[in-house]
Amino acid sequence: MDEFQTLFEFIGKYIPRVDSYILNDLVSGDPEYVYQAATHLIRAGGKRFRPAVVLLTARMLGGGASESRALPLAAAVEVFHTFTLIHDDIMDEDETRRGVPTVHVKYGVPTAILAGDLLQSLSYKAILEAKRRGLRSPRIVAALDALVEAAIKVSRGQGYDMRFEKELVSYHDYLEMIYLKTGALIEASAKLGAIAAYADREVVEQMGLYGRFVGVAFQIRDDILGVFGDPKVTGKPVYSDLRRGKKTILLLYALDHTSGDERRLLERIASGESVKEEDLEKAASIIRESGALAYAQELAESYVKSALDILDQLEAEDLVEDEDALRALRELALFTVRREK
Amino acid sequence: MDEFQTLFEFIGKYIPRVDSYILNDLVSGDPEYVYQAATHLIRAGGKRFRPAVVLLTARMLGGGASESRALPLAAAVEVFHTFTLIHDDIMDEDETRRGVPTVHVKYGVPTAILAGDLLQSLSYKAILEAKRRGLRSPRIVAALDALVEAAIKVSRGQGYDMRFEKELVSYHDYLEMIYLKTGALIEASAKLGAIAAYADREVVEQMGLYGRFVGVAFQIRDDILGVFGDPKVTGKPVYSDLRRGKKTILLLYALDHTSGDERRLLERIASGESVKEEDLEKAASIIRESGALAYAQELAESYVKSALDILDQLEAEDLVEDEDALRALRELALFTVRREK
Repeated sequence: MDEFQTLFEFIGKYIPRVDSYILNDLVSGDPEYVYQAATHLIRAGGKRFRPAVVLLTARMLGGGASESRALPLAAAVEVFHTFTLIHDDIMDEDETRRGVPTVHVKYGVPTAILAGDLLQSLSYKAILEAKRRGLRSPRIVAALDALVEAAIKVSRGQGYDMRFEKELVSYHDYLEMIYLKTGALIEASAKLGAIAAYADREVVEQMGLYGRFVGVAFQIRDDILGVFGDPKVTGKPVYSDLRRGKKTILLLYALDHTSGDERRLLERIASGESVKEEDLEKAASIIRESGALAYAQELAESYVKSALDILDQLEAEDLVEDEDALRALRELALFTVRREK
Repeated sequence: MDEFQTLFEFIGKYIPRVDSYILNDLVSGDPEYVYQAATHLIRAGGKRFRPAVVLLTARMLGGGASESRALPLAAAVEVFHTFTLIHDDIMDEDETRRGVPTVHVKYGVPTAILAGDLLQSLSYKAILEAKRRGLRSPRIVAALDALVEAAIKVSRGQGYDMRFEKELVSYHDYLEMIYLKTGALIEASAKLGAIAAYADREVVEQMGLYGRFVGVAFQIRDDILGVFGDPKVTGKPVYSDLRRGKKTILLLYALDHTSGDERRLLERIASGESVKEEDLEKAASIIRESGALAYAQELAESYVKSALDILDQLEAEDLVEDEDALRALRELALFTVRREK
């Protein structure tokens, strides 16, 4: 993976600081069982994609000092993300994630609800903690604004996602839903990094767009891996998205480009009807042959292209203070659509 | 209820503005079913105790202008409170509240989890909205700090409450738990009112103590009503606290002051064992005769006394700008322990 070397070196160097802050300072207290449940998925691993966006953006626009102010903001988005994973797993009745039992399976539903609620509160606390690291009040307010806006969008996105299990939707609805559910928090991550670097409002908005495009690409790739990914690599159950009739861009495209028995099978899956394991396998190959896989991958790459354009523009405007961080943010955008997990 | 006239006049005049702000501005959007679920309990009624504390404190310390700035803060605490009710009802498997089905009964558990999550996010959004009403950034940060601190305490309190269902606890543990679970948010409510009035830090802390004492008294009275209240008046199922072996101060005191068969029945209830309806009735009368009812009521009234002392002190220091608001806050403290629902 030489093409992602700068990114992975950065993650190897800085993400342990974020993890240490989260596990030792932020998400630590009594009663212990609630905090254990809250840190369960964080301890199980994860890509730390969102905190990397925060720190890299801060470093790119403002150098090392910005990155230090950005540390609690990086923790905030990872903790917020973990909250949504815990609650989504309850709502979706998923039993494994990151190769371990989900929080409600291990600790029970009441504790999992509570652990998620606590993590949401702690994500705002983390932002307030940035004050101690020298981030001034108007920027703290801007950072909270960015996270709260994302939080509302994430809830709305999950609301659409649950409703879409019961009805057919357009490509537009799908893209709007994944922007809300996944793009909005990565958008906020990039904004938070820019806010920590005391970037101008327009630059904060530009980086927000970078995050938004990367986030949408990320989710399209996630939907591809949800059908074609190797469960041993992804840590998620095989065909889980198909099994619950999730209206991904893959299924929507394949429905539009098949007919006869093939289309009927996809319609049964899309209606949420429970089908046999071998039919799920058959559906996956119909989706591939319909051209949906290639279409979705190209769509994801077009979003990445737009994200890269924004970085080019910031570079052309001479706003980049750290070339390595710029390179890593480029790699991160590309990694989004090349990853296998 | 002439003794609470100023309080009820105030609530009748100002709380509709809070409700209107919540229902028309703050908790309004798509997808509609999520927002419907989120407003279900707010539309069903409720005492609006917490927003009244915010507005009255702001008015007492800073007059009408402060009260206007405080409106979104008042909405924030009510919305936050509603979030905790929705999630607690799932965790506790309660089926009715405020005389209507709980949110998860009416909308299903996944939607109820999501509606609660959204309300938590919206409570922070409400505080950020106070900026538009002229509250300056450092005060916005202070207000968020107060709400986040309360949020973490409320989660911790619920964590203890759930654990206490399985083990015996001391009076001290009980009082700490109800401070976290109920007192902390009322403490934050009073602080928010003082923050909106640009009160000095020490006055904010003093009002926080007023809220804390009122909150603990409120919860002790709640525990009394949970055993001796009229379900038709409270809107909660009869003997619900006894049925789940909740370690209230009443049960703890009665366990300490009974023996033989009476104590054995209380022990069975405290252990969470499922007992017959007539045994619950018998337990209630044992608790009354043990002196626990009188003890708990006196304890609650001693907290109210401490809350009233704080108001006296602020008056003596000539910090009161509005006498009616002061009177209403005194009435509110007393109402806490006199109410039947």
